[in-house]
Amino acid sequence: MKGIHQLNPKEIRILTRQGKWDKPTAGLAMGYAQANLVILPKKYAFDFLLFCQRNPKPCPLLEVLESGQYRTQFLALDADIRTDIPRYNIYRKGKLEATAKEIKNLWKSDFVTFLLGCSFSFEEALLRSKVPIRHIEENKNVPMYITDISCKPAGLFQGPMVVSMRPIPPDKVTQAVQITSRYASVHGAPIHMGDPSRIGIKNLDKPDFGDSVSIKKGEIPVFWACGVTPQAVVMKAKPDLCITHTPGHMFITDLLNEELATF
Amino acid sequence: MKGIHQLNPKEIRILTRQGKWDKPTAGLAMGYAQANLVILPKKYAFDFLLFCQRNPKPCPLLEVLESGQYRTQFLALDADIRTDIPRYNIYRKGKLEATAKEIKNLWKSDFVTFLLGCSFSFEEALLRSKVPIRHIEENKNVPMYITDISCKPAGLFQGPMVVSMRPIPPDKVTQAVQITSRYASVHGAPIHMGDPSRIGIKNLDKPDFGDSVSIKKGEIPVFWACGVTPQAVVMKAKPDLCITHTPGHMFITDLLNEELATF
Repeated sequence: MKGIHQLNPKEIRILTRQGKWDKPTAGLAMGYAQANLVILPKKYAFDFLLFCQRNPKPCPLLEVLESGQYRTQFLALDADIRTDIPRYNIYRKGKLEATAKEIKNLWKSDFVTFLLGCSFSFEEALLRSKVPIRHIEENKNVPMYITDISCKPAGLFQGPMVVSMRPIPPDKVTQAVQITSRYASVHGAPIHMGDPSRIGIKNLDKPDFGDSVSIKKGEIPVFWACGVTPQAVVMKAKPDLCITHTPGHMFITDLLNEELATF
Repeated sequence: MKGIHQLNPKEIRILTRQGKWDKPTAGLAMGYAQANLVILPKKYAFDFLLFCQRNPKPCPLLEVLESGQYRTQFLALDADIRTDIPRYNIYRKGKLEATAKEIKNLWKSDFVTFLLGCSFSFEEALLRSKVPIRHIEENKNVPMYITDISCKPAGLFQGPMVVSMRPIPPDKVTQAVQITSRYASVHGAPIHMGDPSRIGIKNLDKPDFGDSVSIKKGEIPVFWACGVTPQAVVMKAKPDLCITHTPGHMFITDLLNEELATF
């Protein structure tokens, strides 16, 4: 039998659907895009879609399914959104109620599914161009910070932008900007670099989420909009019900990262 | 008194608001982006927003206002969407019922306003780089064609993509692709070039909308997704009510075309 790292996206989704894979997806199906999941009842869907339209850097939409649909059309043809994510978080009124390996029993005909891009895609492109990624070198989670940059509100949804930080050697910063600019559908170009206090970050050693990483002499901290933003904003709005992936347990798509690049 | 061509966007909007300007806007406030207008009752808004999300090339959203709001936040700060467009088309069940110089009396608290990018913005950038634009040289409307490319449907909304065509000399095609690629929010890169039959166009001399233009020996017809697409799709869906700008009578924004460029 092949190990999980040898499997293609469809094979991993089948294992997941059968309840045989409920672990994080980092490093799986290399080359393929992974997506964040947000499921909301229809009554919240216009506002959340508008929030994403107004804040494309933290909320890059890869695919939105219509009310009640659980099959993707664009990211994969055979996938079932109710079973193909390794682990789900179920929130009621903004509070985590449970996690689950599938949500078939919870599914309602007014559920609207949003799949959002993830920085795994551009990290692969950075590594391919020998731009170092510190948290991968140090085998940690990327450090994430709540900034004082307000997202543009939409209906119920509002809140600060959350960013991820990668320390980049000065001679690689231009390349890091150029490469990530190509990936507008997975957070795109950096939103800030240098002095963290300019975006309301007090201490780089104390990230709000993830782990702190070492910053070597001369390196510039570079900040990208982060997919934690929409999750934080949804939790803050306290919808009756919201289902997301469990952090790190992403939806693996059939789309190559390279297909997401725009030029 | 200054002529209309000397006025800035705010001054033109004020004249329009006062009912003193109800003519086409081509060539006005050069350098500033102009926008297409679609107003729909709330019950259609999620589907239409989703249609735009799924079809960003023909339907590039610049700004979407929340239910009942008639003031833009991003494209201009002082504008009133009920009065600041030179002429409105009012459609009921997909049929043009009337045109009007303002729609204050029709306004309802459930109206959702969509403002979409327009190719005027990238044409200015092409001209600046000495890429010729035939319909401007010949003082005509751009030729537009209904293709056999289906838009991705969303709820009620579906239909073929409409494209505009500009004949480009072979030594300028690369530049035309590069320049328009920068303007993703105003239709972006071409969707096709060369053989028109490959996208279901039978005769370049007989456009479905606009005027035919001359194509010189060796020139390549280059096709861009066109803002007529969302209008055609909305008419086909026959909503109870839909209000748009009258073709050519656009909303003039305070946003520079250059601010729309992404790299």
